[in-house]
Amino acid sequence: MIDPKAVLTNLDELRALTADEDGAQRVAWSPVWLKARAWFEQKLAALPVEHHYDAAGNHWVTLKGESEKALVLGSHLDSVPNGGWLDGCLGVLAGLEVLTNFSKQYNGKPPCTIKLVDWADEEGARFGRSLFGSSAFAGTHSIEADRVRTDREGLTLEAALQQCGVAVEKIGDASVEQKDLAAYLELHIEQGPILERLGKSLGVVQGTKGVERWAIIFRGQEAHSGSTPMEVRRDALAAAAKLALEIRPIARKHPQAVATMGSVKTFPGIVTAVVGRCETTLDMRDLDAGVLAGMLREAREASERFAKEEGCTVEWAKIWSIEPIPFHPELIAFCDQAIVETAGVSERLPSGPLHDAAEVARVGIPAVMMFVQSLNGLSHNRAEDTKREHIEQAVTGFHSLAEKTCGWILGR
Amino acid sequence: MIDPKAVLTNLDELRALTADEDGAQRVAWSPVWLKARAWFEQKLAALPVEHHYDAAGNHWVTLKGESEKALVLGSHLDSVPNGGWLDGCLGVLAGLEVLTNFSKQYNGKPPCTIKLVDWADEEGARFGRSLFGSSAFAGTHSIEADRVRTDREGLTLEAALQQCGVAVEKIGDASVEQKDLAAYLELHIEQGPILERLGKSLGVVQGTKGVERWAIIFRGQEAHSGSTPMEVRRDALAAAAKLALEIRPIARKHPQAVATMGSVKTFPGIVTAVVGRCETTLDMRDLDAGVLAGMLREAREASERFAKEEGCTVEWAKIWSIEPIPFHPELIAFCDQAIVETAGVSERLPSGPLHDAAEVARVGIPAVMMFVQSLNGLSHNRAEDTKREHIEQAVTGFHSLAEKTCGWILGR
Repeated sequence: MIDPKAVLTNLDELRALTADEDGAQRVAWSPVWLKARAWFEQKLAALPVEHHYDAAGNHWVTLKGESEKALVLGSHLDSVPNGGWLDGCLGVLAGLEVLTNFSKQYNGKPPCTIKLVDWADEEGARFGRSLFGSSAFAGTHSIEADRVRTDREGLTLEAALQQCGVAVEKIGDASVEQKDLAAYLELHIEQGPILERLGKSLGVVQGTKGVERWAIIFRGQEAHSGSTPMEVRRDALAAAAKLALEIRPIARKHPQAVATMGSVKTFPGIVTAVVGRCETTLDMRDLDAGVLAGMLREAREASERFAKEEGCTVEWAKIWSIEPIPFHPELIAFCDQAIVETAGVSERLPSGPLHDAAEVARVGIPAVMMFVQSLNGLSHNRAEDTKREHIEQAVTGFHSLAEKTCGWILGR
Repeated sequence: MIDPKAVLTNLDELRALTADEDGAQRVAWSPVWLKARAWFEQKLAALPVEHHYDAAGNHWVTLKGESEKALVLGSHLDSVPNGGWLDGCLGVLAGLEVLTNFSKQYNGKPPCTIKLVDWADEEGARFGRSLFGSSAFAGTHSIEADRVRTDREGLTLEAALQQCGVAVEKIGDASVEQKDLAAYLELHIEQGPILERLGKSLGVVQGTKGVERWAIIFRGQEAHSGSTPMEVRRDALAAAAKLALEIRPIARKHPQAVATMGSVKTFPGIVTAVVGRCETTLDMRDLDAGVLAGMLREAREASERFAKEEGCTVEWAKIWSIEPIPFHPELIAFCDQAIVETAGVSERLPSGPLHDAAEVARVGIPAVMMFVQSLNGLSHNRAEDTKREHIEQAVTGFHSLAEKTCGWILGR
């Protein structure tokens, strides 16, 4: 029998070991993260498994089955600084419980091989490169650009990896782990308010939204706030303010789209000067690539119209983008069933945040994620929380999904 | 005869002495400022004048007349860092030419006493306290609060003053200079675009606008840009953006009013988070105290409405304010006449920026200012400029105003 309380016990233990009064401190490549991984290794001692770290620092645990075809359960132990007690580690520890159960149920040899992976540096909190380990695995990494990234102390990513035994030029070798992988499942907290607002504990993730992330700079004319009449101003902030408001109706045309202006910087940025330059950022997301492209086009046109109205110019520079990554339709259906069996009612929703599952899906391995309700939609800080009974439901539902997926793998 | 070209020669000489490739560097209490003052002292050598520095570092030059009643011409030699060639020093050097002419015309003893004052630290560029010397003169200084102000290197205002021979606890003694002052005239560049747009070279300043300067903080809820649906956001930037746009129609209801949001800061201020806190500044100005109070009330109500609409709170904290300071109606009329005689056509306009003349007017000394056209409305940087023929007109007009005012003083 699956034992959801064992997962809660492990989560509490890990929190006691790796959090301080400001929250979880399991930042990838740090001593606390290594401590978490060492603690996790101890949990494997009694299991009939092989485990190793791949070329990118991902930790793979293998319970060999009758078939070489492998079902992979995965997530990440690393956290942001001052993070929560669930983001990432819930998925790893739920996976551990499911793997343990498969081992018990089948006397150490389940029908399909069960793998558990703890991805390295999902958060990218220290060097700004998220999905580090899973992108190395997927072959979508950008290590030539990333190796010189530095943390706040000026240490390079390359040097930090070396301290953890990872050679930066070899990380692409992690792709050998793709062999025989037949399906990938990931349990994660929602990190948003949707399930809570619907009064549902669990949901199926349809895929991860595509993201368009841009820096937008408006340039007008710095001018004296006292001597410059309103009608001759070329106020870069006014153009930016119009765009900050206009991206909202653009996103609201689509039920799951979001658009965010997260940063505004004003120059010279003093109380006595009309803003001559305004630097903003825009982040737009949707599960549909066509919708996302349309939103981007609309925002761009609006920005050009506003710049013109205010006597300014506008300039767009791409920060980063990724296409929408849909999960596997049959696994989505299994996940729905597993949730209905466990919680009575399910919900399909996209993921706004990215996850390692997206990198796995990108290389064609069937994948799906299950979300468990977050309280108050909060994550990435110590206030992140989920009801304990919902965590127990999630472990039970995730186990059921793993059983269905194992059967599906063998029948293909 | 008044010699406007002599003023241009002096301006060029001062620029060569105290500007570098980035502009004027006559920041108050700095070695370059002291050099400018020493240069100015040499210009007095051939004149039958007494001169001294008062307790606040203001430099007074006195040409004794038949009457003790004194006409004061004033402005300031100090500049902002990387400043222009005219802001402040035009008024001092035009005043020097007018005083020189009075001396020549009346063989060293004009009908009324003529004084010339170079105020100390009008700009407040280094310590953030503008109108330093003139407020000490007027008794409106705030030295107990200001003495501990520091510059970028951490040096206190008190220590900087001491290096220039000014004892901070004595600066209020500068008020003794008020004795026998019967009128005050100041020539200054407009620093705005109004005269240029009207095609006029000179204008009469009706007074300095009142200023309301506030810090406004909107607080919503920081949230993940990917996982937070549009309809549950409490976006502090959205509330601030609405206010940034709304202050414009509020100001435009009044012909001479201005309202500026000069600084916006977003927190956490990253591309992937909805803005949880937005700190802004507001600067509103008008010549009419009732209009200004009404604008402030409207902006405040609007901010509260926007905060409510966006699920945010808003908080206002006063940075600084000053009431409108009208100039003397008879001197305004004289200034109008002098301009019409010189340039054919005049214009009455308020000053958005503050000037030392406002401090003088505050203590009841009749005062007025004359503005000369600025090119492109630019000031406080090296691009600040005025046509040389307009400077010549300004000196001629200012001389005429001084003659009229001298006659008016004697007839009172």
